[in-house]
Amino acid sequence: MRKLLIAGSLLLACTAAWSQPKTLSGFGETDAKQELQLESNFDGYLKAANIDSNLRIMSSHPHHVGSPGDKAVAEYIFNKFKSWGYDVQIETFYVLFPTPKERLLEMTGPVNFKASLAEPALKEDATSDQTREQLPTYNCFSADGDVTGELVFVNYGIPEDYERLERMGISVKGKIVIAKYGHSWRGIKPKVAQEHGAIGCIIYSDPRDDGYFEGDVYPKGAFKNEYGVQRGSVLDMPIYPGDPLTPGIGATKDAKRLDRKDAATLLKIPVLPISYHDAEPLLRALDGPVAPEEWRGALPITYHVGPGKTRVHLKLAFNWDLKPVNDVIAKLPGAEWPDEWVIRGNHHDGWVNGAGDPLSGQSAMLEEARAVAELHKTGWSPKRTIVYCAWDGEEPGLLGSTEWVETHAPELQRKAVVYINSDGNGRGYLGAGGSHALEPFMNEVARDVIDPETHISVAERKHARELISAADGNRLKKDLFQKKTFSLGALGSGSDYSPFLQHLGIPSFDLGYGGEDPGGEYHSIYDSYDDYRRFKDPSFQYGVALAQTAGRTTLRIADAPLLPFDFRALAKTIDEYAADLMTQLDNLRETTALKDQLIKAGDYGYATDTALHLQPPPAHDLVPYLNFSPLQNALNRLDHAATHLADTLARMHLTGSKEQSVNEALYRAEQQLLSDNGLPRRPWYRHTIYAPGFYTGYGVKTLPGIREAIEQRNFAEAQQQIELDAAVITRFADYLASIVL
Amino acid sequence: MRKLLIAGSLLLACTAAWSQPKTLSGFGETDAKQELQLESNFDGYLKAANIDSNLRIMSSHPHHVGSPGDKAVAEYIFNKFKSWGYDVQIETFYVLFPTPKERLLEMTGPVNFKASLAEPALKEDATSDQTREQLPTYNCFSADGDVTGELVFVNYGIPEDYERLERMGISVKGKIVIAKYGHSWRGIKPKVAQEHGAIGCIIYSDPRDDGYFEGDVYPKGAFKNEYGVQRGSVLDMPIYPGDPLTPGIGATKDAKRLDRKDAATLLKIPVLPISYHDAEPLLRALDGPVAPEEWRGALPITYHVGPGKTRVHLKLAFNWDLKPVNDVIAKLPGAEWPDEWVIRGNHHDGWVNGAGDPLSGQSAMLEEARAVAELHKTGWSPKRTIVYCAWDGEEPGLLGSTEWVETHAPELQRKAVVYINSDGNGRGYLGAGGSHALEPFMNEVARDVIDPETHISVAERKHARELISAADGNRLKKDLFQKKTFSLGALGSGSDYSPFLQHLGIPSFDLGYGGEDPGGEYHSIYDSYDDYRRFKDPSFQYGVALAQTAGRTTLRIADAPLLPFDFRALAKTIDEYAADLMTQLDNLRETTALKDQLIKAGDYGYATDTALHLQPPPAHDLVPYLNFSPLQNALNRLDHAATHLADTLARMHLTGSKEQSVNEALYRAEQQLLSDNGLPRRPWYRHTIYAPGFYTGYGVKTLPGIREAIEQRNFAEAQQQIELDAAVITRFADYLASIVL
Repeated sequence: MRKLLIAGSLLLACTAAWSQPKTLSGFGETDAKQELQLESNFDGYLKAANIDSNLRIMSSHPHHVGSPGDKAVAEYIFNKFKSWGYDVQIETFYVLFPTPKERLLEMTGPVNFKASLAEPALKEDATSDQTREQLPTYNCFSADGDVTGELVFVNYGIPEDYERLERMGISVKGKIVIAKYGHSWRGIKPKVAQEHGAIGCIIYSDPRDDGYFEGDVYPKGAFKNEYGVQRGSVLDMPIYPGDPLTPGIGATKDAKRLDRKDAATLLKIPVLPISYHDAEPLLRALDGPVAPEEWRGALPITYHVGPGKTRVHLKLAFNWDLKPVNDVIAKLPGAEWPDEWVIRGNHHDGWVNGAGDPLSGQSAMLEEARAVAELHKTGWSPKRTIVYCAWDGEEPGLLGSTEWVETHAPELQRKAVVYINSDGNGRGYLGAGGSHALEPFMNEVARDVIDPETHISVAERKHARELISAADGNRLKKDLFQKKTFSLGALGSGSDYSPFLQHLGIPSFDLGYGGEDPGGEYHSIYDSYDDYRRFKDPSFQYGVALAQTAGRTTLRIADAPLLPFDFRALAKTIDEYAADLMTQLDNLRETTALKDQLIKAGDYGYATDTALHLQPPPAHDLVPYLNFSPLQNALNRLDHAATHLADTLARMHLTGSKEQSVNEALYRAEQQLLSDNGLPRRPWYRHTIYAPGFYTGYGVKTLPGIREAIEQRNFAEAQQQIELDAAVITRFADYLASIVL
Repeated sequence: MRKLLIAGSLLLACTAAWSQPKTLSGFGETDAKQELQLESNFDGYLKAANIDSNLRIMSSHPHHVGSPGDKAVAEYIFNKFKSWGYDVQIETFYVLFPTPKERLLEMTGPVNFKASLAEPALKEDATSDQTREQLPTYNCFSADGDVTGELVFVNYGIPEDYERLERMGISVKGKIVIAKYGHSWRGIKPKVAQEHGAIGCIIYSDPRDDGYFEGDVYPKGAFKNEYGVQRGSVLDMPIYPGDPLTPGIGATKDAKRLDRKDAATLLKIPVLPISYHDAEPLLRALDGPVAPEEWRGALPITYHVGPGKTRVHLKLAFNWDLKPVNDVIAKLPGAEWPDEWVIRGNHHDGWVNGAGDPLSGQSAMLEEARAVAELHKTGWSPKRTIVYCAWDGEEPGLLGSTEWVETHAPELQRKAVVYINSDGNGRGYLGAGGSHALEPFMNEVARDVIDPETHISVAERKHARELISAADGNRLKKDLFQKKTFSLGALGSGSDYSPFLQHLGIPSFDLGYGGEDPGGEYHSIYDSYDDYRRFKDPSFQYGVALAQTAGRTTLRIADAPLLPFDFRALAKTIDEYAADLMTQLDNLRETTALKDQLIKAGDYGYATDTALHLQPPPAHDLVPYLNFSPLQNALNRLDHAATHLADTLARMHLTGSKEQSVNEALYRAEQQLLSDNGLPRRPWYRHTIYAPGFYTGYGVKTLPGIREAIEQRNFAEAQQQIELDAAVITRFADYLASIVL
């Protein structure tokens, strides 16, 4: 029988995790001591040199989906796991993966110009000359197309930019747009352009965002030189990620596939990414109004919006082939509860050599897995099964993880305790997002990892950064000092946790270090070992820190007698989201009414330079009051249920099958937050608390059903979603209440 | 006997000036009707074509201090006034006015480069080729110097930039600094550089601020092309303006002059303004840390701070001659109270052709004066004397106005009712700053001037702009709708009101239109008639609007039976300044303590990329609580006195000598706000409520004695200044209380 330190210590963890004596949520005193000793041994096995070597070898050749390099990397990982004694297999899916057959971008007026569409090799970058093996610069899942039209500059190409264009009297219908990278996931730009009638889309990297404005350019410094291009997917992942032809099911060899024309996530217009070297002549040639100040970048030109005499011709054709993606799945069976899985993953495919993205994370994960294997050799086994996953096909659209999750969905919903993700990693501060019932737990993990640069805990460093950032922004307040824990970020999308969390409701984390590793190499040929060694994490100590962080997370959850879920933290977080929504609605109501008054009074006309011919913004209907009481009552119920559960668990001494059934109930709880029909117009996304934004892409929307309906001013739908979420949260509260009945 | 509409209507004016029936503060019903009819006739005389013609003729040649063009312009103005029947004279002073003898700027390492220091003639700009008559590009009152040193980029060169440099571990001692124009008056940059030990200072115009980033460049558009240079004075005017050799006294022919080395307002280091064409090679050559994000401009480079291998050689020599400044003073005697003067002024000297600055304002003032003369021809005379002043030597340091004010100080303090200033003018919105006892009055003036573009009153347009600007910045609140008057801006410096207001306490206004006339021509050869006609006010309708606004202001104050001062508005404004100061001190106390905690905890080190070697900011002593009660009690007394005065005046029917003595007491009241010893370390500035900032130059500091002491963390001085200001305000309150005894 174990004596457990649970609710009491959880409460302390909520208020001052890092200043407390080292308690471990879910562990009794003796167990905790053993666990801390285990982790100390684990740390002892981790070697930065191994991370370096993993990274160097795996990034030595381009390794995108379907390439020989991709297969070689998967086999490298497979062999490593095998050699360390894991039960390992490569699970292969067959996914749509278009690659370029033809790429042409030229300006035909007022002057002629043909875009180079090429990233040159650099003598300072050893792998940059592997031209034959490299994917050319392109946006994966662009449509085929051959279009010619006037060019319009649309800033970042997000919906509010089109509102501004409308005020300027500019339509993109029948035109080709050029948008800057940034401020949204890239796939949003062509999608919104297409919605507005554009026939083609160019996306370029402005030097303001990751080029010379930010710092010296590669190879002198880390930032994007004039030829660097960001490749990347433009699949409409906010509808569903994964293989576009097999939504909701695994893309096995024999899976029933959609016809390509019926795949909802495929664009209808061609889209191409270019460098600022290629963009400058196009932008310089534009006339029409001067772009609004916040639209302008760092090119030495006056940014105009167009349209006018500037005509461009964009011609793109692709090979629309099915390609294999090779997921490497390695298991270390649990000694006590083998059917409870702690899943830890990082993708292995890159757009080119992919040193930073994803191999920095992958290399650290491999070292973590090796150290876990070393622990196992000493006689220790995890209580729960640990599953390491090296995903393929993340870059084109979370293909490898999504297909695996869809294939194994029922088993995962039974067995998966948690999914712990990482991706690219570098020097700096801990970034941690995830399921908020595990927020106190993660504070304990971060308390116990020491930052390699400052030798304080990564939690303390994270807090210091929050304080200094507030001080620098003149937002420093006493309560920020008093706050002694950090909040987990809410997860949107952009890496492989998405299918676990948002499709299946499996509690998830996304972990990584960064903030002192900026640069412009992302998805270019310059994301190389040479670049990484100079600018990202030269000593690989942050690779070690990631292995320590994700490793501790994995080990503690695998070994905890009682799983460290604290639903009070989740309840509190949802309370905050709901309060924020209500405030937002009130603000929207007030500003809509006030703006309407301005519009009616003609003030926009009076306050605008008549030479600019700027139209007032459109008037909107009054924003109604919505009935939030069902949600408020549900949250009240949840608060009570979560507190009652925590209090009860603190009093109980669980053993045997009761312990197992409580644990199972705890880790499956978040699945109760899935809605049966998913989000409006995108049923694949079923989590009612977290989703990637329909118009932000990676950026998270919390309570997404309600929030996006309000943002879209669809108040009838917002009311429905309030009721739906209230029902889901009530069910969740009742579920929690039933756990210790 | 006149029936006066005063306090009652003043109160209404305070709350909703433009929505009321047309009452005129200080006028009885019949008088008001007559006055409005007079103003309507006045409007009828104003002709845009005359403003155009004045501007064209006066800007046809360069007309800086001491030039033939300057004399010609003064004579043009003199002859105009003479022809209209004014009693006119040219009053000449003799002032120090250095002009360049030698200018050299070169980079001697790591590469060689010699700055062109020249603005080329353009075929699109007819006067730009008058090279022989143009002053070369320079900063007036730079020291002579021949210096060579490493270059350091100091952003805008204001004190907080040096705090940042210190955190970067960079000293400018013995080095030459390069600063961007903007964010402070230019004279602050070399002054602060000199205080930090720099041996030379270069100021350049970054294209981010008024070049291609902002819009198309001249001659295609209005913004600064790569060769445009902003000339301008670097006299240390925050100590005293006017001739550096005759502080406090008129620079008449025989005045006792300081030795040049003893003039406190003269710099000790050489300083030179350059174009971005000349700046780019220097900035591109810099190494050292990358400049902080907010320091970077729009040149296509990575901005580095230096120092390093970049060495520059700056050699400047000047002719240190005395030059005449010719003030044109024209009077129209008052029929009733000839010894009460309503003074209206605008300068006439320019740096080169000076079409926008100052001739757009000067031309409108001339047209205003002509229309006043036309009224006079019909038999009307002002009750008070109107004095039109066309100042010379404003550009080098308010020389013409300051010397005139210093020469006639005692007479002015007896006779001057108000000083109404204007300067450059263009298309857009009314800008109005001034003495707050006249705020309700100015709201009435703006109520009665119709905007030429939108055909609503300029007051309404100003309000619409305030609303839309708040809406665009998401700051729109209901109370802004309800606010139906505008506030006068507080006056700092930068034009000729400064000696009137801040040295003598004469109630002042500064009026002008702008906001739809941006560009980069300021103080360059491109501030020409051609530029003005295309980009500033093509139809000269805003010249007419200025004449209507300043003309109404002049006429109403000249004719008002009771002068329209409402000291309740002033009291309310000072209350706000004091409240703001107290909040600022509290904020400073809190942030100082919190930052101190961060510094002591080492958080700056933890939250900063160790590769940047950024030091924490310096710790400061705790910020004490100050005793504001003397000021609060004084303000309380002032509130009561102002209200009592207004109530009493509303009940009284004044006539004859009592009327005259009350009026005199009213217009001399603001002089009671002067302190006998002036501000600390700059006794010339005696106004306790308004002053230009010691470290901002033009930017105003309200309650400057207290505010600057707090900003400089000199809390003992702040406490002294609180007591001093409290005594002054008490005296002022008692003075007001005595007016109607």
